Amino acid sequence: MDSTEYTILQNKFAVILCRPEIPENIGLVARNMKNTGFNDLRLVGISSLEKKTIVTAVHAREILENARFYDSVADAIENLDVIFAATAKARKRFSLLPMEEALNKMSNFTGTTRIGLLFGNERTGLTSEELLHSNFRFKIPQAGNQPSYNLASAVLVTLFSIFSSEASISKAFYGQPLSRDDQEACLHRILLNLEKKGFIHETNKNHVEEKFYDLFGRLTMTAEDRNLLLALFSKGTK
Amino acid sequence: MDSTEYTILQNKFAVILCRPEIPENIGLVARNMKNTGFNDLRLVGISSLEKKTIVTAVHAREILENARFYDSVADAIENLDVIFAATAKARKRFSLLPMEEALNKMSNFTGTTRIGLLFGNERTGLTSEELLHSNFRFKIPQAGNQPSYNLASAVLVTLFSIFSSEASISKAFYGQPLSRDDQEACLHRILLNLEKKGFIHETNKNHVEEKFYDLFGRLTMTAEDRNLLLALFSKGTK
Repeated sequence: MDSTEYTILQNKFAVILCRPEIPENIGLVARNMKNTGFNDLRLVGISSLEKKTIVTAVHAREILENARFYDSVADAIENLDVIFAATAKARKRFSLLPMEEALNKMSNFTGTTRIGLLFGNERTGLTSEELLHSNFRFKIPQAGNQPSYNLASAVLVTLFSIFSSEASISKAFYGQPLSRDDQEACLHRILLNLEKKGFIHETNKNHVEEKFYDLFGRLTMTAEDRNLLLALFSKGTK
Repeated sequence: MDSTEYTILQNKFAVILCRPEIPENIGLVARNMKNTGFNDLRLVGISSLEKKTIVTAVHAREILENARFYDSVADAIENLDVIFAATAKARKRFSLLPMEEALNKMSNFTGTTRIGLLFGNERTGLTSEELLHSNFRFKIPQAGNQPSYNLASAVLVTLFSIFSSEASISKAFYGQPLSRDDQEACLHRILLNLEKKGFIHETNKNHVEEKFYDLFGRLTMTAEDRNLLLALFSKGTK
């Protein structure tokens, strides 16, 4: 890879850590990002860094200095388009991709598509609410079920795989998705509509919403897709 | 991989840490070994483990309990056949393999060949004397020269690469899609519905239908997906 290609890679990806608990892990993540050529770090649910974090971020302090803090995943995905969430275990209502396929998908978005890599808290992983903001879930292969990877290890394995696969250079097979914000706004609008029509009600709300976000998240909706979806779902509402 | 294949992988490789200084790193190495299916850990230049090491070795204590301690690399390579040393920088008098080639070589040895993976001290790396005990040196690819990988990260990247190149992970990630026939029957039913409602008419029919098939074809619809889609689209038709 020449340096232009590095820059493209760096600009294409952001690492989002949800409610990280162990300060050393954040520093290790920064160091792992630096090693593999990434620089956009976003932290959800914390508002400052501890000294222990700085210590483990050997030679990667500028990544910490430029890190951004957010109250929620909804805020943290600002200006990103497609979100891939790393999960250690399958969830009932969210589909799961093998890692290889997730990596392939990432490489098939154009270079201008901004991809967020979402990682959960060390003990709890990602909550269902956090997963709602993802287009795809993937599982990092491992030899047994216990233990799951350490947080910094999960990030490293993901970033190293992106970095070292030659396929990391954009192949531009997919249309440019809407920003994740706009995707969610569209889904929200359809859901409201369905609620109004009585299709969604108190007893099925969580279930249907999660399935709905999973189903339509997988489309990584383009502007054209949105037009069709909104048209389809607005029909019969008047 | 079935369990026999895991066992072969585990028996084929040993991880040797030379003079590790940071106790947490040894625990993280154990955890990373556990995640990727390795179990033979050898420690050179230390004679016992600290409490901090146990703490970071989440669910991987048995690897620490079975770890062996040695005074020198010469002793630590007992009953191993081929030694690969990880080095962050090229050395004057030692040839260096790209990581890919080192991995290829490892996989080309028979299952009964015992391979040692040698990693150096966090600050100094491997000394020339230590490197003398290696058959091959390899460098883990990284985006810049600074910093080198953290010790546990270097081990992880190596083990994960071995594990994922030898592994054939279960492919059963997708829900079972409906037969293509059944997928199309579902789409056809929705389209008829949309036609009845006047959303599709003579002038836009081809255009909308093709977009529609593209959009929903990408879902590789399961029976569950179909139920949701049919429910969603039937709403408001009566």
